[in-house]
Amino acid sequence: MDDRYHADLPRDVYPADEWRLVETRFDPRRVGAAESLFTTANGYLGMRGTCDEGQPVEHHGTYVNGFHETWPIVYGEEAYGFAKQGQTIVDVPDAKIIRLYVDDEPFFLPTATLDRYERALDMRAGTLDRTLVWAHSSGQRVSIRSRRLVSLEHRHLAAISYEVTLLAYDAPVVIVSEIAAEGRTTGDNGDPRIKQFGCEVIEPQVSRAADRRIVLGYRTRSGGMTLSCAVDHELRTDCDYTTDVRSDGPDGRIDFSIDGKVGARIRLVKYITYHSSRRPQAHELCERADRLLNRAVRRGFSDLIDSQRQFLTDFWHRSDVVVKGPPEWQQTIRFNLFHICQATARAEGVGVPAKGLTGPGYEGHYFWDTEIYLLPFLVYTTPRIAQNLLRLRHRHLDDARRRAGELNQRGALFPWRTIDGNEASAYYAAGTAQYHINADIVYALRKYVEVTGDTRFLADVGAEMLVETARLWVDLGFFDRHDGRFRIHGVTGPDEYNTVVNNNLYTNLMARENLWYAAATIRAMRADDAPGFKHLVRATGLDPAELDAWQLAADRMYLPFDDRDRVHLQDDSFKDKEDWDFEHTPRDKYPLLLHYHPLVIYRHRVVKQADVVLAMFLLGQEFTLGQKRRNFMYYDPLTTRDSSLSCSIESIVAAEVGEADKAFNYSLDAGFMDLADVAGNVQDGCHIASMGGFWMTLIYGFAGMRDDGGQITFSPQVPRQFESLRFPLQVHGRRLEVELTPKSATYLLRGGEPLAIGHQGEAIELQPDVAVTRPSSAAAPATGVAE
Amino acid sequence: MDDRYHADLPRDVYPADEWRLVETRFDPRRVGAAESLFTTANGYLGMRGTCDEGQPVEHHGTYVNGFHETWPIVYGEEAYGFAKQGQTIVDVPDAKIIRLYVDDEPFFLPTATLDRYERALDMRAGTLDRTLVWAHSSGQRVSIRSRRLVSLEHRHLAAISYEVTLLAYDAPVVIVSEIAAEGRTTGDNGDPRIKQFGCEVIEPQVSRAADRRIVLGYRTRSGGMTLSCAVDHELRTDCDYTTDVRSDGPDGRIDFSIDGKVGARIRLVKYITYHSSRRPQAHELCERADRLLNRAVRRGFSDLIDSQRQFLTDFWHRSDVVVKGPPEWQQTIRFNLFHICQATARAEGVGVPAKGLTGPGYEGHYFWDTEIYLLPFLVYTTPRIAQNLLRLRHRHLDDARRRAGELNQRGALFPWRTIDGNEASAYYAAGTAQYHINADIVYALRKYVEVTGDTRFLADVGAEMLVETARLWVDLGFFDRHDGRFRIHGVTGPDEYNTVVNNNLYTNLMARENLWYAAATIRAMRADDAPGFKHLVRATGLDPAELDAWQLAADRMYLPFDDRDRVHLQDDSFKDKEDWDFEHTPRDKYPLLLHYHPLVIYRHRVVKQADVVLAMFLLGQEFTLGQKRRNFMYYDPLTTRDSSLSCSIESIVAAEVGEADKAFNYSLDAGFMDLADVAGNVQDGCHIASMGGFWMTLIYGFAGMRDDGGQITFSPQVPRQFESLRFPLQVHGRRLEVELTPKSATYLLRGGEPLAIGHQGEAIELQPDVAVTRPSSAAAPATGVAE
Repeated sequence: MDDRYHADLPRDVYPADEWRLVETRFDPRRVGAAESLFTTANGYLGMRGTCDEGQPVEHHGTYVNGFHETWPIVYGEEAYGFAKQGQTIVDVPDAKIIRLYVDDEPFFLPTATLDRYERALDMRAGTLDRTLVWAHSSGQRVSIRSRRLVSLEHRHLAAISYEVTLLAYDAPVVIVSEIAAEGRTTGDNGDPRIKQFGCEVIEPQVSRAADRRIVLGYRTRSGGMTLSCAVDHELRTDCDYTTDVRSDGPDGRIDFSIDGKVGARIRLVKYITYHSSRRPQAHELCERADRLLNRAVRRGFSDLIDSQRQFLTDFWHRSDVVVKGPPEWQQTIRFNLFHICQATARAEGVGVPAKGLTGPGYEGHYFWDTEIYLLPFLVYTTPRIAQNLLRLRHRHLDDARRRAGELNQRGALFPWRTIDGNEASAYYAAGTAQYHINADIVYALRKYVEVTGDTRFLADVGAEMLVETARLWVDLGFFDRHDGRFRIHGVTGPDEYNTVVNNNLYTNLMARENLWYAAATIRAMRADDAPGFKHLVRATGLDPAELDAWQLAADRMYLPFDDRDRVHLQDDSFKDKEDWDFEHTPRDKYPLLLHYHPLVIYRHRVVKQADVVLAMFLLGQEFTLGQKRRNFMYYDPLTTRDSSLSCSIESIVAAEVGEADKAFNYSLDAGFMDLADVAGNVQDGCHIASMGGFWMTLIYGFAGMRDDGGQITFSPQVPRQFESLRFPLQVHGRRLEVELTPKSATYLLRGGEPLAIGHQGEAIELQPDVAVTRPSSAAAPATGVAE
Repeated sequence: MDDRYHADLPRDVYPADEWRLVETRFDPRRVGAAESLFTTANGYLGMRGTCDEGQPVEHHGTYVNGFHETWPIVYGEEAYGFAKQGQTIVDVPDAKIIRLYVDDEPFFLPTATLDRYERALDMRAGTLDRTLVWAHSSGQRVSIRSRRLVSLEHRHLAAISYEVTLLAYDAPVVIVSEIAAEGRTTGDNGDPRIKQFGCEVIEPQVSRAADRRIVLGYRTRSGGMTLSCAVDHELRTDCDYTTDVRSDGPDGRIDFSIDGKVGARIRLVKYITYHSSRRPQAHELCERADRLLNRAVRRGFSDLIDSQRQFLTDFWHRSDVVVKGPPEWQQTIRFNLFHICQATARAEGVGVPAKGLTGPGYEGHYFWDTEIYLLPFLVYTTPRIAQNLLRLRHRHLDDARRRAGELNQRGALFPWRTIDGNEASAYYAAGTAQYHINADIVYALRKYVEVTGDTRFLADVGAEMLVETARLWVDLGFFDRHDGRFRIHGVTGPDEYNTVVNNNLYTNLMARENLWYAAATIRAMRADDAPGFKHLVRATGLDPAELDAWQLAADRMYLPFDDRDRVHLQDDSFKDKEDWDFEHTPRDKYPLLLHYHPLVIYRHRVVKQADVVLAMFLLGQEFTLGQKRRNFMYYDPLTTRDSSLSCSIESIVAAEVGEADKAFNYSLDAGFMDLADVAGNVQDGCHIASMGGFWMTLIYGFAGMRDDGGQITFSPQVPRQFESLRFPLQVHGRRLEVELTPKSATYLLRGGEPLAIGHQGEAIELQPDVAVTRPSSAAAPATGVAE
């Protein structure tokens, strides 16, 4: 692992376990990190892995995807076209708190003497389980077991089972279950990548409590979004008890006062619901909450546990990557994939925030990460979710058209960062200037269509996006007066350490692909007189002459190349820059963005994240293998990997160009990004895109899979550290099972029509249910045209 | 005049007058513009030309130079090293309001029927005089005469004489004199160049009223600066009257209730003082106010009038430029020079804001304009003020050292915009990135030293600035690995439409000059073992080896040049840009910055203001005349002149390269910048730098004066529209009088030692008090080495 990074996973506390992430000791220094790692979520509702009792805490962190507050962005110096409105996901009222008092002593984890402690995120069960024994100095001993889940089956539902058993003698037991809104804003840690809103931005609209149920409704002060949060409780015990329930404005609580008897189990189940809306309908949301709680209580906790496991059995069947190798790898793989599941499973009609629902980082915005880092996994395992996410982009197309207009351009420009479809980037150099977002979305759209065969989606939804993105590119760039090449100036590529540059290679290549694909797709629709074509012309005012303009711009696209070193240039001026003095940059000055003024970073030859290297992965067919190797060897040492989006891509390309050790280590960096806190900021949330990137290192990197034009090929580069690597892919509705060893590859198509694939240059027509095994030679390139 | 600009000076309302700016009719559409133009100020205290009665008003606008409020700059997206604290000059409590009621009818200018109206800024008297007769529908007629001055002699003092005479019949007259703080914040007009703070940011500390005096003390809420504002009154009349004086927190007023008799003059004199401090001493400031008011009342209004005229007689003797030519020229010249006087005369220990004290534009910040546009006039007419302003920069040297550190650089970096010495720019691309500010200051320092011969100032104060600025340049740039040239990347030149570029020609040339001058000056001090040298070494930790590094960087400075078109390039990528479509840009889209996103502007070949052209003026010796002409013809059509700093420089260079019409028209643009509202924003304040630039068009442009190395030469290019042009210059403590016609030049040295000058290539040794006349040939270049 690159020693410039943190690497913080004490293995004695977090032992490797194939299906669980286990914490064997409470570590006060890792409270924030553990909250992120132990998050339970379903893509709509997320709850950080705070301890049940609510303290100690770094970020309480309960998030409802899309529920955000808006605020006017005030610029010290304003300029035309700057984004006007900020959007920040709200840390909603915290319903997961259950406090315990025994003999009037509060249970407080940091100071409690523990006879036993284990907390585990169970990735097959989909639950967060904690088991401990509290040994009080009075001689009392108390067994406490809790299990928390956010239902993957029931989008708006979470539940917690909290069991207490007195082990030493009878004593009064009080359990307080809360919904807490007040006083929960946590501090600003000064990291520019964090901004958070807590309950200070919401105001109560409904507040009622009766029996064991509390129902609260809210609205955001500025944006006017509404939310309900409601809880109901079941207490099972043979002990006598009384209850006291109340709500007070934004807060609510119920106290269970129990005459605890030694050995008698006391089990509280708390059902939790959240509903949200863009409209002013807090009362209506509270009624929905009531209905859902009625159903949940009727069906009971064990029913939730069962449906959760069933959901995950399906998930793992579609998605699991099984590796025989160093023990931590299997856990790492499952941890990453499980979190992708938690971030996306029920993300319906909403995006996937950069941190999923695991923390406040990046304000709950979603970026290009979704399309480039997450969509491949979804396309190959759960294409329905991939389609939902692309459909959401289409729903934001009118916003994107308006935004292009604000930037004095034709067509549409998708927002660099957003929750509601409007641009929320307040720093154009590393925001709005990243026009490549348009091409990234189209790239993902194409991959979805080609791998699933869903051409209807392309015609119905995709084509309109192709037209508007192509228009943007043609209008943004220009034909050089002298050489007639098409150039795109004043943009920022993926690498945010080189901003507002001319002819960023990645952007130009991706724009070219966007233009070609748009022209070809629309031409084909027109030639076929496809049913959607007339509608498309109406919706976009398309003039057929535009297609020729797109084609011409693409055909003449300028690609910067340095003849002296025979490398592609990241942008026109990349080779002119002053060298960054890596040798004299101490480790604690990384990431550079936290220690150097942007002007200092921008004027040096230093790269935050894969840019040319990313282009070589996404558009591998545009480079020879030798060129890839030269480029990789040039850019790799200049890359700080200050972005979590870098190492996965570098791993994949390293595998392809024969840098096996780098491929292995960078893959591990990606896999460990959150587990071992490689980037040093996991306390603010998990890096969901890096998780998708990690999956890509396995499939595109080690298995050497490529899917250019929808044609699936493999050139496996299985690390020598592995015995085998096994995974399924969903292609055109069929299941393809792949099992690799360092020396062989076995492909098995489950049912359906035959499927043509490639293996190290050999074409193979797979027949259903007939396994085909081939030897793998050591150094076969994945892609790339001949020199 | 360039027809892309506004040009709004209705000559029927504002007739040409050699010594006065006259308004013959009240025009409600020009309220804001007139407030700026009719400002009275002395460089410490400024009062916009609002009408005496306080309404109607665009910006009340009373400013005390340096009295500002601070505020945290909040960035939508923060980054390391961004300026943290904003600074904004405060529109202080308004003491110039005098309301009039006759028969209980208020006098309100927009609705009053006027028999007569004239308002005039008298540039010899230094007063703003208004004379009018109010004809009320009741048949009453009232003569109202007022005279306002901000004393040039007494820095903290202003006074207003307000005379009322009933012309028709006896009636009750009420005159209310106020200090008004509350409810005065005026609206945000959305222009990003305006931000204003009114009295909402100050809180009362002292509030007392007795007899006819009101004394108020304040402090700013955040910055803690303190201010006193106090008034006293004299009423002279034969009519009976009563007075009622009171203060209420931040406000105060005195009512004079008078039994007005027809024909009896009622004359109120209001004495106004302001004092300010950085320290919490509002009470102390109020005591100072008392003492000053005692003195002012004792000496009386006519004494103020006399001293004001005396001060201006001196000013005009040193500064007047007399032209025989089109009638509006003389008024235009005097108007511009008078406003420079008002902006600088008593600017002691403070800077000169971009708008002087005439309006809220640019928040009261001062910029490089001071050094490049204003200092030449001051150096040649009032070097003491020039020295003060340079000394202020030296006082801010420690702030500049700290700022360089925040930008990860050695040496010192002066703030792009500031009031208190700290960087206040919240937009680095057109702010902090303008590193050229360092070289601009050194350029002005050198000019001051060479023209005045004040080498002691250089040794005592200047040398330290030379060391720290040179250090910045050497650290900022780098030697190219391939060609060994010294390059400076990631900077913005004067032209703010091309930002964060590599090798901005202006910056590289000016940095080279800075380095050379620093090396030569410090070497000479060292060789002479000058008395200041040891102190300098102690103060800066100077290592003699540094001098060689400065010399080397300067000697090897890279200057971008395009071999194909044989023009200097504004920066490395200037020729690669897409053409701006001037033809299809409608007039109402200028200035571009208010209608296009910065990214759109930056990626096109379009220039806001003279950049290469400015370098050709400031460092004319570095270009051949032919090269100047080629460069001028290339850049002139690309320049929008969206900055008021452009046309004066273009005029000067146009004169030099033989473009006489352009020279004339651009000069007129500069001279009319405020009078005719060329930039369309004079309501927010006058463009003081452009006024200095206008003076330069006369002296450096039409008279063809150059002063490279302190050697004064002339190559007159007097416009054919002029009969003659006459002006004095102060050189090495001597007065040089120059009188030019299109065909001849006469030079007269008043007293002192002989002075060597040049005229069209001829060396002339001027003897004291002996006029020398030479013919001027039509096309002699001002400077420039042979091709």
